[in-house]
Amino acid sequence: MLGYFGPAGTFTHQALLTITHEEARPFASVVGALAAVRSGEVKGAVVPIENSVEGGVSATLDELINGEPLMIRREILVPVSFGLYVRPGTRLQDVRQVLTHGHAAAQCRVFLEGLDATVTEAGSTAGAAEEVSRADSRYDAAVCARIAGRLYGLEELAYQIEDNIGAVTRFVEVTKPEAVPMRTGADKTTLVVFMHEDHSGALLEILEQFKVRGVNLTRIESRPTKKVLGSYNFSIDAEGHLHDKRIAETIQGLARICPQVYFLGSYPRADGRAPKLDPRFSDDSFTAARDWVEEIDAD
Amino acid sequence: MLGYFGPAGTFTHQALLTITHEEARPFASVVGALAAVRSGEVKGAVVPIENSVEGGVSATLDELINGEPLMIRREILVPVSFGLYVRPGTRLQDVRQVLTHGHAAAQCRVFLEGLDATVTEAGSTAGAAEEVSRADSRYDAAVCARIAGRLYGLEELAYQIEDNIGAVTRFVEVTKPEAVPMRTGADKTTLVVFMHEDHSGALLEILEQFKVRGVNLTRIESRPTKKVLGSYNFSIDAEGHLHDKRIAETIQGLARICPQVYFLGSYPRADGRAPKLDPRFSDDSFTAARDWVEEIDAD
Amino acid sequence: MLGYFGPAGTFTHQALLTITHEEARPFASVVGALAAVRSGEVKGAVVPIENSVEGGVSATLDELINGEPLMIRREILVPVSFGLYVRPGTRLQDVRQVLTHGHAAAQCRVFLEGLDATVTEAGSTAGAAEEVSRADSRYDAAVCARIAGRLYGLEELAYQIEDNIGAVTRFVEVTKPEAVPMRTGADKTTLVVFMHEDHSGALLEILEQFKVRGVNLTRIESRPTKKVLGSYNFSIDAEGHLHDKRIAETIQGLARICPQVYFLGSYPRADGRAPKLDPRFSDDSFTAARDWVEEIDAD
Amino acid sequence: MLGYFGPAGTFTHQALLTITHEEARPFASVVGALAAVRSGEVKGAVVPIENSVEGGVSATLDELINGEPLMIRREILVPVSFGLYVRPGTRLQDVRQVLTHGHAAAQCRVFLEGLDATVTEAGSTAGAAEEVSRADSRYDAAVCARIAGRLYGLEELAYQIEDNIGAVTRFVEVTKPEAVPMRTGADKTTLVVFMHEDHSGALLEILEQFKVRGVNLTRIESRPTKKVLGSYNFSIDAEGHLHDKRIAETIQGLARICPQVYFLGSYPRADGRAPKLDPRFSDDSFTAARDWVEEIDAD
Repeated sequence: MLGYFGPAGTFTHQALLTITHEEARPFASVVGALAAVRSGEVKGAVVPIENSVEGGVSATLDELINGEPLMIRREILVPVSFGLYVRPGTRLQDVRQVLTHGHAAAQCRVFLEGLDATVTEAGSTAGAAEEVSRADSRYDAAVCARIAGRLYGLEELAYQIEDNIGAVTRFVEVTKPEAVPMRTGADKTTLVVFMHEDHSGALLEILEQFKVRGVNLTRIESRPTKKVLGSYNFSIDAEGHLHDKRIAETIQGLARICPQVYFLGSYPRADGRAPKLDPRFSDDSFTAARDWVEEIDAD
Repeated sequence: MLGYFGPAGTFTHQALLTITHEEARPFASVVGALAAVRSGEVKGAVVPIENSVEGGVSATLDELINGEPLMIRREILVPVSFGLYVRPGTRLQDVRQVLTHGHAAAQCRVFLEGLDATVTEAGSTAGAAEEVSRADSRYDAAVCARIAGRLYGLEELAYQIEDNIGAVTRFVEVTKPEAVPMRTGADKTTLVVFMHEDHSGALLEILEQFKVRGVNLTRIESRPTKKVLGSYNFSIDAEGHLHDKRIAETIQGLARICPQVYFLGSYPRADGRAPKLDPRFSDDSFTAARDWVEEIDAD
Repeated sequence: MLGYFGPAGTFTHQALLTITHEEARPFASVVGALAAVRSGEVKGAVVPIENSVEGGVSATLDELINGEPLMIRREILVPVSFGLYVRPGTRLQDVRQVLTHGHAAAQCRVFLEGLDATVTEAGSTAGAAEEVSRADSRYDAAVCARIAGRLYGLEELAYQIEDNIGAVTRFVEVTKPEAVPMRTGADKTTLVVFMHEDHSGALLEILEQFKVRGVNLTRIESRPTKKVLGSYNFSIDAEGHLHDKRIAETIQGLARICPQVYFLGSYPRADGRAPKLDPRFSDDSFTAARDWVEEIDAD
Repeated sequence: MLGYFGPAGTFTHQALLTITHEEARPFASVVGALAAVRSGEVKGAVVPIENSVEGGVSATLDELINGEPLMIRREILVPVSFGLYVRPGTRLQDVRQVLTHGHAAAQCRVFLEGLDATVTEAGSTAGAAEEVSRADSRYDAAVCARIAGRLYGLEELAYQIEDNIGAVTRFVEVTKPEAVPMRTGADKTTLVVFMHEDHSGALLEILEQFKVRGVNLTRIESRPTKKVLGSYNFSIDAEGHLHDKRIAETIQGLARICPQVYFLGSYPRADGRAPKLDPRFSDDSFTAARDWVEEIDAD
């Protein structure tokens, strides 16, 4: 059974449904969902990792490297649209108290500022919908996904109320370490690298390891190491697969220069887009270079 | 009058009190506080920008560059410790419903997991304390600062319950653009730089602009540009002051290669620590080099 | 009066004739010619600096920075072709002793190896021609320029005998420091930069100074600093003029990080080819960036 | 039998004597000596490659990559001192015509300028000594090694007349490709790398391949590729041995990005100096990184 960051009715739930319609178990937090993977309670979990508006999902980025090893084996992209949902009968002009998740509030700023209402943060948009569905709720409306509005029998007063139409959230399916998914030619590899804290220019060194092997990055995000201000690790998505020689060598290079490197998985890109690869960095080029050096040495 | 990200009783309030005891106005959100600076309603506002555990405060990082120009004129460091606060009489074993801000919950994970309680996210830790102080509240306890517990007449059941003792939050005082504070020799400069989206290696180019002029960074954080996944800007704190020649030239260099650069201010470091400056990058070195080139040209 | 690295009949002489037909004074060595410029004996001198086959002319590269400052104010390109010249009556099959300059011998290797002859190095190709023109010379033939063969009444047995047809030598006109020639938009700047001897990665640092300002190099040559093996300076030609802001700032950058920098001049390119300049590094871009930073500071 | 760049009495001869006292064969040129290695006429040859004053020996650098593969299997350092040698009876004040090799003349500039004499370039310093030893020679004195003065029965009028006392020439023993000499821990590797001609920043890319693997360079010299002005290859000595993993991987990296790479050998340093190796780039570090990546993949 898979788990997911619930409750039912969230975009995460929607992401999960793209990969299975079997019964799945919602967890109240990303931390809980990933802990259940670690303990073996579920064989995998779907959690959000990145939002085109709000950026990286800190809980996921941090929790992936906090404890027993985990692995990303798939990514799922879900378009994100919000609506305003109320108990049947509530009119737009009566909405004074809105409940929603902080990320949703942030993404619907303009619409919410147009209401004469106070916005309160809930733990999830679906939780907000559930709360609003109670007859005695102090809240008049929830900002949530359409699926949540329906699930809790709410009425839709407005839809696609987000500031940036076209937002996308990226989810990942996380399991315990297992065989890396097959290389498809359009893959991503996720890594977390730690810098030597007192080493100015360390980030430059890290980027050079990718550059000299022709590896392009699609995401790089800093996360605090939770020790002192200004100490970071970097969460990185690189184009390519562990079985691409340029990626394997890059990871080795990082492992040498960084105090800590986490390999979080290689998996097919959800958009199926293959990288424009400079032939100098193809597997053939790596093999030819290795063969040549071995030949030199055999003389 | 200054504004701050309220309500009263938060760490932001505590930060504000280190610079003034005059009356100040709390705002329900960072966005609201900064909007009031932009509109002239308040002459400045104190907002959180970075937490040693949770990382950058997205709302602040994003809002600083969203609208009319703003300027950081001061930073304030506040040690962060949380406690568990209840209505008088509630016992620890009776706590089933905890209300707190998501950041606080994240920082007190271990303690909270040890409770047999559900944690709900509120808009602020002080707001949570206020809610818990109501006799009819559905919540039994708030995780908040001691100042908030006292303000709302709550009882302290536990203190310093955070996972990482020693956490610090960094706040900034933000105003409309005005004269840059005087150089002290131990200063920081905050910038936001945008990359050319389709330019692999663009971050490397940005870092090189700092490196060739001997400028060290104390913070670099990625933020999504809110258009597509994988498009970022970088929020950067550099050691030095706009009036240091190496900083002025670096900013010019960035302005040339980046589609957009925001200068958010130069201000004294809260910790008063002067950088270890390689003499090759001192003002004297810049002046000598310029004079020499002018001399060549005068022949 | 101009001087040149003589004697008459050399390619240097030919280069000189492209800029003046007034009387000029030959010197027996590059060192002598440049010393005469330094002493004021001649107002300028034409000397070779680079050959497409043999590389940099060490004597010139070294002597330009050995003593009172000198300046390059012009470059001249001369196609290089050699012939085999003998006293009238000598037949090809009788040639046993060939006299020529080492560079010429190196450039005509294949042809000379085809002769059944010993090759002796002379101080110059014209000197070789002169020696061969003596009735009692021990040498049968000279490898030299056609102009030298004619000057000394020799007969041409072969022409264009060089291995690489299309070789070019680059000459420079050197004066004492004076006003830098006007910018034409298709200019070169010649620099010599010294590295910190014990600083691994120093060359990388030097190249980065050019790169971050979008300056392309057309020549980079290492020269020993004459102290220990492995200690170098670099002689560099960069695209652009001292009056291009990107060049002026690059020179300042080098002056800061290198123990010693020599500016040897900015002058029009002999081939008139303007660089493909990324607009991010144009003078307008530099001016805009500077204006913007001044504006920030004026708030 | 070994060959060497003769004639007898040169510093090259002296270098040869440090490795063997068996009969050896002098060649009139570096080209000739290396051709004899290629043809199998001699099993190896000693030739000069670098001089602390004059820089790289162009003929050697070029010829090593011009034809069938060759390999450097040893380096030899010889201190270089010159004297002024004459036929017995000639007095210093009578010296009007001095014969010597161009490199020797360049290294004894100050002394020679102090003579009231014309300096003529010969093919070698020993050849100059031989010529001067003839009773009917037009030359009065030779600048050469003491060994040559003695060999030809000349009288020493002055010794250690070079400008830079302490000059050293570096010689190499060259063979056909054979097993690479054993790693000693204090080794050098010689490479020649070609740049993509039209690729600005190509040298930077080459240097980065070394830098990211912690490989230090002890020599880097540009050589023209003999096609057009401004087209170069780089002759490079790196600290380390083909059997050091950081060197093997660097060579593979260069092989991928450069149109042409020549491996000219790994051999013990003549000075026996082991590099200060950052442990991040030791063999153990490479092995650990590789093992770790294999382990990831085995899951």
